[in-house]
Amino acid sequence: MIPLDAFDLILFGGSGDLAMRKLLPALYFRHRDSAPATGANGWRIVSVGRENLSRDAYIAKVETHCRKYIAAGDFDETAWTAFARCLDYIPLDARQPGDYGRLATLLADNPARVRVFYLATTPGLFAAISDNLGATGLVTPDSRVVLEKPLGRDLASARQINEEVGATFREDQIYRIDHYLGKETVQNLIALRFGNTLFEPLWSRACVRDVQITLAETVGVEGRGEFYDGIGALRDMVQNHLLQLLCIVAMEPPASIDPDAMRDEKLKVLRSLRPMTPEDVATRTVRGQYRAGAIDGLPVASYLDEPGIPAGSRTETFVALKAELNNWRWAGVPFYLRTGKRMQERLAEIVVNFRDVPHALFPSLSGERAPNRLVIRLQPDEGLELHLMAKVPGDEMRLRPVALNLDFADTYHGRQWDAYERLLMDVIRGKLTLFMRRDELDAAWRWVEPILDGWEQDTVPPRPYTAGTWGPAASSALVGRDGLAWLQDS
Amino acid sequence: MIPLDAFDLILFGGSGDLAMRKLLPALYFRHRDSAPATGANGWRIVSVGRENLSRDAYIAKVETHCRKYIAAGDFDETAWTAFARCLDYIPLDARQPGDYGRLATLLADNPARVRVFYLATTPGLFAAISDNLGATGLVTPDSRVVLEKPLGRDLASARQINEEVGATFREDQIYRIDHYLGKETVQNLIALRFGNTLFEPLWSRACVRDVQITLAETVGVEGRGEFYDGIGALRDMVQNHLLQLLCIVAMEPPASIDPDAMRDEKLKVLRSLRPMTPEDVATRTVRGQYRAGAIDGLPVASYLDEPGIPAGSRTETFVALKAELNNWRWAGVPFYLRTGKRMQERLAEIVVNFRDVPHALFPSLSGERAPNRLVIRLQPDEGLELHLMAKVPGDEMRLRPVALNLDFADTYHGRQWDAYERLLMDVIRGKLTLFMRRDELDAAWRWVEPILDGWEQDTVPPRPYTAGTWGPAASSALVGRDGLAWLQDS
Repeated sequence: MIPLDAFDLILFGGSGDLAMRKLLPALYFRHRDSAPATGANGWRIVSVGRENLSRDAYIAKVETHCRKYIAAGDFDETAWTAFARCLDYIPLDARQPGDYGRLATLLADNPARVRVFYLATTPGLFAAISDNLGATGLVTPDSRVVLEKPLGRDLASARQINEEVGATFREDQIYRIDHYLGKETVQNLIALRFGNTLFEPLWSRACVRDVQITLAETVGVEGRGEFYDGIGALRDMVQNHLLQLLCIVAMEPPASIDPDAMRDEKLKVLRSLRPMTPEDVATRTVRGQYRAGAIDGLPVASYLDEPGIPAGSRTETFVALKAELNNWRWAGVPFYLRTGKRMQERLAEIVVNFRDVPHALFPSLSGERAPNRLVIRLQPDEGLELHLMAKVPGDEMRLRPVALNLDFADTYHGRQWDAYERLLMDVIRGKLTLFMRRDELDAAWRWVEPILDGWEQDTVPPRPYTAGTWGPAASSALVGRDGLAWLQDS
Repeated sequence: MIPLDAFDLILFGGSGDLAMRKLLPALYFRHRDSAPATGANGWRIVSVGRENLSRDAYIAKVETHCRKYIAAGDFDETAWTAFARCLDYIPLDARQPGDYGRLATLLADNPARVRVFYLATTPGLFAAISDNLGATGLVTPDSRVVLEKPLGRDLASARQINEEVGATFREDQIYRIDHYLGKETVQNLIALRFGNTLFEPLWSRACVRDVQITLAETVGVEGRGEFYDGIGALRDMVQNHLLQLLCIVAMEPPASIDPDAMRDEKLKVLRSLRPMTPEDVATRTVRGQYRAGAIDGLPVASYLDEPGIPAGSRTETFVALKAELNNWRWAGVPFYLRTGKRMQERLAEIVVNFRDVPHALFPSLSGERAPNRLVIRLQPDEGLELHLMAKVPGDEMRLRPVALNLDFADTYHGRQWDAYERLLMDVIRGKLTLFMRRDELDAAWRWVEPILDGWEQDTVPPRPYTAGTWGPAASSALVGRDGLAWLQDS
């Protein structure tokens, strides 16, 4: 464990959903496990928000949420009390420059400390907060700012956010967070690819037939219908999470794990993405919207009947698409990306399907023929599976599929770090490797925008799919046209 | 399960050690599991031997041994009774042509049946038995003969045996048995190599650093000192088992698993073995002989003190050598072979060590750096392990070795077939794939002979090693000179 220096973390949106559900529990765990000093010599977490709360009332609110979101066995009363001593709260209207004075006074005691501004707010506030922080003289040389998604709704708005925040913060102070990159399994995918000789010779069009990345949720819009309806699955999941995972799978070995070496390679992948023509949008993308159905045996409503969704909304809750990379390593290898709400299972996985043997020597058991594949599971359990064909015991040479497993929970005892724990610690330590650089964001939007445009002009609405399935039939057909199939499908 | 036709199996050496310990238990299991008919319409096993026993006395003897060598849970009284009905015994002096008449009378009832002559005798009798079988007219078109090792003690004597047996049997009737090739894991190695796309791109000098094959026994000469002293470890283990395993690891993908397609590829490997010059024998081979020591905490005698070993014997009980293949796939990759008696553990394994990553991106835990490797275990438990580096959970990118396991006993419930069960069934069904062809035997002897000659002329006796160790220090040095180490070493 690398010891953590003292820091000030200023959490905008400190009484919001993300702070309560993810960020504060993550900080509790890191505090509990490293037991740093408190106050001016250690951790200080200053939440700010429009709600007019006393420090005690805020801490009480955090405690209520932490007790809800942290497993009982992990919630330690002593550790909680020590953690609560780090917490403070200041009511502040982010748009009011005059409100920042109290924050400045509080932080003035030690301007040399690492200072993290975490903007867990709507992106509409990023510019105002940056401006006001700058104007109040709060941005020290060791300051960082963390930006939560959505970073824009198209290339122009993303550029605008970057311009605005960039007026106050240098690029190397800006941490664009994508929590999928903080997951242990994604880290392990990087470790496996570049820490072993076994994978690299297999990792190209010569051996890989197709790659499938699925981020499937069973939840619907969860009371945030109005917000979600303005965004949709392509902006919410594809432009960031799915493309970032694609980058990790497809990138060339970097010269080092320095942030820019890694991000240069990811950028190259994004720039290699074959642009979608209008015809491609029609044939290589599928958008869907869920209808009433059942999840785990319980009936759930249609998207159009969720609170806050306007009648006739054409916002997609499901996307499947076929991406290709115009480079030497991957030319001709389809990367199928898929995400959706109200799917059959909560599942996040990367599947690398290898080509068939060029010449079959052995009969396999009927119906049991399967390609070699590597499955990297991110959710619900993190783990790795290598699928091979092995001999069925007995006197005949018949093959059947077997899986070699690396189940992290089995192999490593003890609690796994949540993605936000890793990413928060990286911000505090100034490690940019797992955060998106501005040019990456630009490149991702540039690739996604023609799809947005194509759908905008499309007269056909999103294809309906029954909640609790793997999405519309067109998603299966998209892969099926190439003679392939999703590993998980209805 | 392929149903077995009726057959006659004539077992020479039918009251000997191999018959009692391995062959008859193997036949019991196959009979128990397939429950074939008995008598003229089913299995008939006729043991012959010099001992003058009645059928009943012989069956009683087999029963005693089977109860000893078969696990109690596997010995089923009903199945035994059914099996015993297949057994018969004829006293016969293999050198006396007149003794074969009774056998001929017994087998005359159905000459169209598959007829297997299993020669579990000293090779000195192979010629006489073949001659007498031929002269008595016992060799039908559907007859096979199984030859047990040792098949000669050098190229000339091996050729003589093949000439003599070949005078009566066609080459495609001759089954030269090497029971290591019947092991489930060796079968699975063939299945893995040629039933998956994952291994072939890695399976060459580009990715493999070295291969190690170890066949280590903890037993000594087990009361067969006089016999063993005339042979030694090179003839007993290297010329046959170790070279056959090397062939399975190193062979090119065959066009089919037809016997001659497979054996052609194995032959190519044997013919690619870089010949040993006299200097090579001095620098690339190590022979050893055990001294008193301890196995599992119990003291054991020196080889020279075993019963039947002449004073000053220079017979080796241990061999380590470095082989190389003069071909495109394997040039420059050392194949280290090692076998011995009175070793630290009973262990049979094939280790394929892959090269290091060309450029290290991540720090590994101190002392925990390990190459990617595939370990194929044949004994004591059959299994496969793929050793990789994976990330240690937590926030830092540190790697440590992990193993993906395929443990056959865990994965496949139920009893594993013994190697002799598979091989006997293959003989009966006429499947020659797992048996050595004459030209393979020639090539193996041709490569081994210069080592025998070099040692013959060597003034230095075998290096002593303490019983219960991994052999003489020179064995570690042989590998160490290349900057490598045995995976298992003292």
